[in-house]
Amino acid sequence: MYGIIMAGGSGMRFWPRSREGKSKQFLKILGKQSLLQSTLKRFKSFIPCENIYIVTRKNQESEIEKHTVEIPLQNILYEPIGKNTAPCIGLTAITIQQNDPNAVVVVSPADHLIKKEDRFRKAIFAAVQLAEEKDGLVTIGISPDRPATGYGYIQIDGELDTINGVKTFKVRTFAEKPDLETAKRFLKSGDFFWNSGIFIFRIAVFLKALEEFLPSLYDGLMEIKKCIGKPNYNEVFQKVYQQIKSISIDYGVMEKAKNVYLVKGDFLWNDLGSWEQVYKLSPKDKNGNVVHGNVVYHDTKNSYISASDGIVAVLGLEDIVIVQDEGAILVCRRKNAEDVKQIVERLKRQKFEKYI
Amino acid sequence: MYGIIMAGGSGMRFWPRSREGKSKQFLKILGKQSLLQSTLKRFKSFIPCENIYIVTRKNQESEIEKHTVEIPLQNILYEPIGKNTAPCIGLTAITIQQNDPNAVVVVSPADHLIKKEDRFRKAIFAAVQLAEEKDGLVTIGISPDRPATGYGYIQIDGELDTINGVKTFKVRTFAEKPDLETAKRFLKSGDFFWNSGIFIFRIAVFLKALEEFLPSLYDGLMEIKKCIGKPNYNEVFQKVYQQIKSISIDYGVMEKAKNVYLVKGDFLWNDLGSWEQVYKLSPKDKNGNVVHGNVVYHDTKNSYISASDGIVAVLGLEDIVIVQDEGAILVCRRKNAEDVKQIVERLKRQKFEKYI
Repeated sequence: MYGIIMAGGSGMRFWPRSREGKSKQFLKILGKQSLLQSTLKRFKSFIPCENIYIVTRKNQESEIEKHTVEIPLQNILYEPIGKNTAPCIGLTAITIQQNDPNAVVVVSPADHLIKKEDRFRKAIFAAVQLAEEKDGLVTIGISPDRPATGYGYIQIDGELDTINGVKTFKVRTFAEKPDLETAKRFLKSGDFFWNSGIFIFRIAVFLKALEEFLPSLYDGLMEIKKCIGKPNYNEVFQKVYQQIKSISIDYGVMEKAKNVYLVKGDFLWNDLGSWEQVYKLSPKDKNGNVVHGNVVYHDTKNSYISASDGIVAVLGLEDIVIVQDEGAILVCRRKNAEDVKQIVERLKRQKFEKYI
Repeated sequence: MYGIIMAGGSGMRFWPRSREGKSKQFLKILGKQSLLQSTLKRFKSFIPCENIYIVTRKNQESEIEKHTVEIPLQNILYEPIGKNTAPCIGLTAITIQQNDPNAVVVVSPADHLIKKEDRFRKAIFAAVQLAEEKDGLVTIGISPDRPATGYGYIQIDGELDTINGVKTFKVRTFAEKPDLETAKRFLKSGDFFWNSGIFIFRIAVFLKALEEFLPSLYDGLMEIKKCIGKPNYNEVFQKVYQQIKSISIDYGVMEKAKNVYLVKGDFLWNDLGSWEQVYKLSPKDKNGNVVHGNVVYHDTKNSYISASDGIVAVLGLEDIVIVQDEGAILVCRRKNAEDVKQIVERLKRQKFEKYI
């Protein structure tokens, strides 16, 4: 069994804590470990380190090795440029296949929160079994507990046999992030799950699907694969990767393939998409505040206040997010926390790139 | 004619911009000059520099000379400890009297905003004439345009002759900062003025009033005066000043004396008591925001946002004050801006003295 951790995110949704080259996966947003370290620890509990691959981007190089010291350096792959999930999984898949043509891989984002890890492993093991039995592309679905509009959804078709007590399904369709009305309908119907972004398959099965649905990506990968271990590898890799089309595994493969299955994960899962999510998941003081670092407040409630250096003083506010880090401060309503990307856009336009 | 500028304020109402040893008078809160520099410039337009005295506290020493370069060093008096206005005026008065027994002085706080300076001078000249003619203690009163609860009030008695077109009155009584109901009543009655904290009198008249109403302060000052120019001056000054009772000129003298007069000042006056006052007096952009330094905002209205170094990003807020300065950030509702002292109290209690 092999693991692929996708650690290429450039997410700016945690600005000013996250910056260019220091994306969300490197942050210790909840607890003492970075999200990448937590993901790696979770993988290490059932996959040996030499079978775990990290795929990231060149601009994350300075941070990545600090968070992945147990992983052999040759298992860290650097995309010269981000091309979304299908190419980065493809790149890692051909690299693993070179060593082990029969490999089954578990693919996961580096920067999500997962708790109840025994249940996580149980779901993964069922997914591996299903992937091997059915020659399938398997995804982990999370039962929605609210009509979230920030997640993709997967609709199931017929229920299959449970595997070791874990429910498994055939997938009917993938749905993009819905509006609230649609999300409510999904929730009510009972046959929609959240798309966790975790995929399990034999590499051969995945590459066959690429060949069918994304042939130009497949051809590019094969061109790269031919050069693995040869002097011209880097030259070919750089050239081909630049030309590859940017596309997600969901849209490019999973939505189109027929052999797609879903395993129900009943662990706690959150994609940590905003400071608001972090606020909701953090323990709060008696005023409903989450406070980190040097903070004084008076007459302030239900707020997330974080000071990395210096001091933040707050007076007479509620439902607010304040994050101070390295010369930058974000102040926003909790309900606007998902719009932090608009601030980052403004920073670019107003020539404040040094703070990005 | 002599001037006394009271520059001893330890005001923390502009934290984090104001700090211990860098009080409000040194801040360039409105415009390019510090409030002390503006006050000095106003005085210099009708009093020669060698007749202007600054009275301040020892802990302001590092800043004060930078803001008062035109003033002879011997005209800057340092209180070892703040004792409110009556002692500091008394100390400066005996020092001036040593050089000029017939001096008339204009006393003013260093950190108020005054505009329409020609009207200011006209009021001062009328006050000087009145002080000399009546042997009086004269104050400048400002016609209230709203029921402010943050100012002291002065009630007039009979109207006297105008002096060069300026209205003058006998004073009936001084009133402390009123509650809103009382302030509304004051405004309606038409015979109450705001107490500007500006006083004009012959030194001999003032010292006579001290002798009558604050005899122990008077005795202390006389003890200090005897030693002016002698080797034991500093020793006596320090010892006596420590023992002097802290008391304001309003409460200790003006409320009790009979020979108190008011000259109506129709210049623009504001004591700049909070960030909210500064917001109200500042020019605003089309969203009603006052913005200084590196600030980006989106969906934000009617707010005061100031960054001294680094960058402040604001999203989805209104009616808010954000001030960043030297490792500290204040975030509060505009209506809570007067409670910044509560933050400073908390900083003390929580051992964050280095940020005060």
